[in-house]
Amino acid sequence: MKTQVAIVGAGPAGLLLGHLLKAEGIDCVVVERQSGDYVLSRIRAGVLEQITVQLMERLGLDARLKAEGLIEGGFNLADGERLIRIDCEGLTGKTVVVYGQTEITRDLMDAAAPRGLNVIYDAGDVALHDIEGDAPYLTFTKDGAAQRIDARFIVGCDGFHGPSRQAIPASVGKSFERVYPFGWLGILADVAPCNDELIYANHERGFALASMRSPTRSRYYVDVPLTEKIEDWSDDRIWDELALRLGPDAAANMTRGPSIEKSIAPLRSFVFEPMRYGSLLLCGDAAHIVPPTGAKGLNLAASDVHYASAALTAFFKRNDADAIAGYSDKALARVWKSERFSWSLTKLMHRFPEDGPFERRMQVAELDYIANSRAAQQTIAENYVGLPV
Amino acid sequence: MKTQVAIVGAGPAGLLLGHLLKAEGIDCVVVERQSGDYVLSRIRAGVLEQITVQLMERLGLDARLKAEGLIEGGFNLADGERLIRIDCEGLTGKTVVVYGQTEITRDLMDAAAPRGLNVIYDAGDVALHDIEGDAPYLTFTKDGAAQRIDARFIVGCDGFHGPSRQAIPASVGKSFERVYPFGWLGILADVAPCNDELIYANHERGFALASMRSPTRSRYYVDVPLTEKIEDWSDDRIWDELALRLGPDAAANMTRGPSIEKSIAPLRSFVFEPMRYGSLLLCGDAAHIVPPTGAKGLNLAASDVHYASAALTAFFKRNDADAIAGYSDKALARVWKSERFSWSLTKLMHRFPEDGPFERRMQVAELDYIANSRAAQQTIAENYVGLPV
Repeated sequence: MKTQVAIVGAGPAGLLLGHLLKAEGIDCVVVERQSGDYVLSRIRAGVLEQITVQLMERLGLDARLKAEGLIEGGFNLADGERLIRIDCEGLTGKTVVVYGQTEITRDLMDAAAPRGLNVIYDAGDVALHDIEGDAPYLTFTKDGAAQRIDARFIVGCDGFHGPSRQAIPASVGKSFERVYPFGWLGILADVAPCNDELIYANHERGFALASMRSPTRSRYYVDVPLTEKIEDWSDDRIWDELALRLGPDAAANMTRGPSIEKSIAPLRSFVFEPMRYGSLLLCGDAAHIVPPTGAKGLNLAASDVHYASAALTAFFKRNDADAIAGYSDKALARVWKSERFSWSLTKLMHRFPEDGPFERRMQVAELDYIANSRAAQQTIAENYVGLPV
Repeated sequence: MKTQVAIVGAGPAGLLLGHLLKAEGIDCVVVERQSGDYVLSRIRAGVLEQITVQLMERLGLDARLKAEGLIEGGFNLADGERLIRIDCEGLTGKTVVVYGQTEITRDLMDAAAPRGLNVIYDAGDVALHDIEGDAPYLTFTKDGAAQRIDARFIVGCDGFHGPSRQAIPASVGKSFERVYPFGWLGILADVAPCNDELIYANHERGFALASMRSPTRSRYYVDVPLTEKIEDWSDDRIWDELALRLGPDAAANMTRGPSIEKSIAPLRSFVFEPMRYGSLLLCGDAAHIVPPTGAKGLNLAASDVHYASAALTAFFKRNDADAIAGYSDKALARVWKSERFSWSLTKLMHRFPEDGPFERRMQVAELDYIANSRAAQQTIAENYVGLPV
């Protein structure tokens, strides 16, 4: 098979890029290791910045998002005693939209066949070849048969563990990493959220987040040591812990219900540089991971896809090789800023085992300062709704 | 001897408080372990927030400060490649004044005799007694003779190593501390400053600060490991290091000259709670230390003195015991905010031996963010000029 752009990975980043290229008349194929159902079963983020919403709008795939998404004008930081509301809309004129990553993926999947976007699921042993030159190709197996796709470019949207980043020689790339000493234990349940807006809490028992996917579906998290086992956390134990950490007001409004999904996810900050090597471009988790605090993961993938689709379009429409050459620097500038915000919000809202009483007081002082400074609230708000692309 | 308020320490905090009480008609005595000349020889901070300037104005002791002080509308953060100007005046409508702590002390000392403020220098073995009750007293030796001052209150303005804080039982107080893995090597020289405004630099060789005391007197710093000896740092070596760390533009404007003073000071964050115990109030370094980044030390002492003089005035004029009871919480609220700012600016502008490449990139990303966000610049500016008292 021959195409202009071979995309590895049919998560939201890969599908979004595929649709954007298709809309520009650029030929592409998306290759995914898993089945479509498996991709849809991955529970991930649910807060969309404007860049992500705008890309869905540009594709004309925003009808359900607009109908079902919850527009959020702000969110809250809690410290066990009070709720500090960050009035994003008042401070920046912008909002975010609560709409599950799963729903975005479904919208993009449903539009694939009607728009002629070729997505090959259940592709085994995906491998990248000759990425240094102008004629890279992918190999994989499908239904037991070996397959090959020749392309002008390959874009790796295959997440942290995918083969794309690993295809770049170790001598070329540089990794930056920070691992956190806890994970987020998440519970998804079909109950009404305890609050219209998200609540991030830094309680003496640890971190908690009250979030939602819709008016009838809630997503909550607590942080736990990485040694914890999910089997030891019954639904009741999670609800009890949430009630303590979120505080009496939120607890009074919290509706308990059976978990639909429950898991412990480690927290990691990770950036790989560069985000392009030869004819390979990386987007999203393939190049970088943020801790989930602040909900930047999906949005950062969307801004990568925005830059990558612009660069590929410039190349195929105007023979602009500089656009491809400039992709990595452009994408990384925004990546590092989001990494910084996710890292600093993580540090502000979690108790770190290595921190002493002084560091704890620095958290309290920072929350106090935020509560009383419009400028401080504005820095958080402008990062939360998304810095300019 | 009998007085209403016995003040321990005749640094700027103690003298400022003495003058303020005197101006309210409250009787007080200041007791200082060192000679006046020794106190004046201590080279310290030189950037005054409005609260400090206002207290000098209120005392009518601001003539020289107004004539000789340099009004600074902003300052700069440098990262080896660029200068990020923080336009304090444009962002907050406020400025700071460069005027050496030594000069403040001199102005306050010179006014003591004319205003009848009794300052006893060279007082040995100062000790505090009966601070729990309503009749505390100080003992000390002067010219070989034992002395005693009875007072209604004692105020400890005697710095980190003074006896006041140590008079509070260990069971009552709580200390919060962070020690930094470097010190500031400072040089004072009678040369014109390299720049009208301060430059804080985070260079790969380490931190540097270009500061000044007047148009003809410069104060520079570089950070060094705590193992360094001042004997190993000739003037030339310091100037060479400054030229590298401040970058070519500042280096080109830097005038070298013989050092008047040269020393290595450790960096520390420290807070003692509470700031009042019985009839003892603590002000300034006696209760807290900030690292010098951001120049908060003297200004924090001034805001403590502002709160303490208000509380003591309320007590003696209106029998208001609640004002005394509320002093510690009021002062500490501002102390912790300044501690946070000093700590965060220290973390942003220094290279920490324990930091890896990821943490270094977080510094770069934060400087990038600051360079491009008005809100981020405003948070720095409002802290630098001083949060509301």
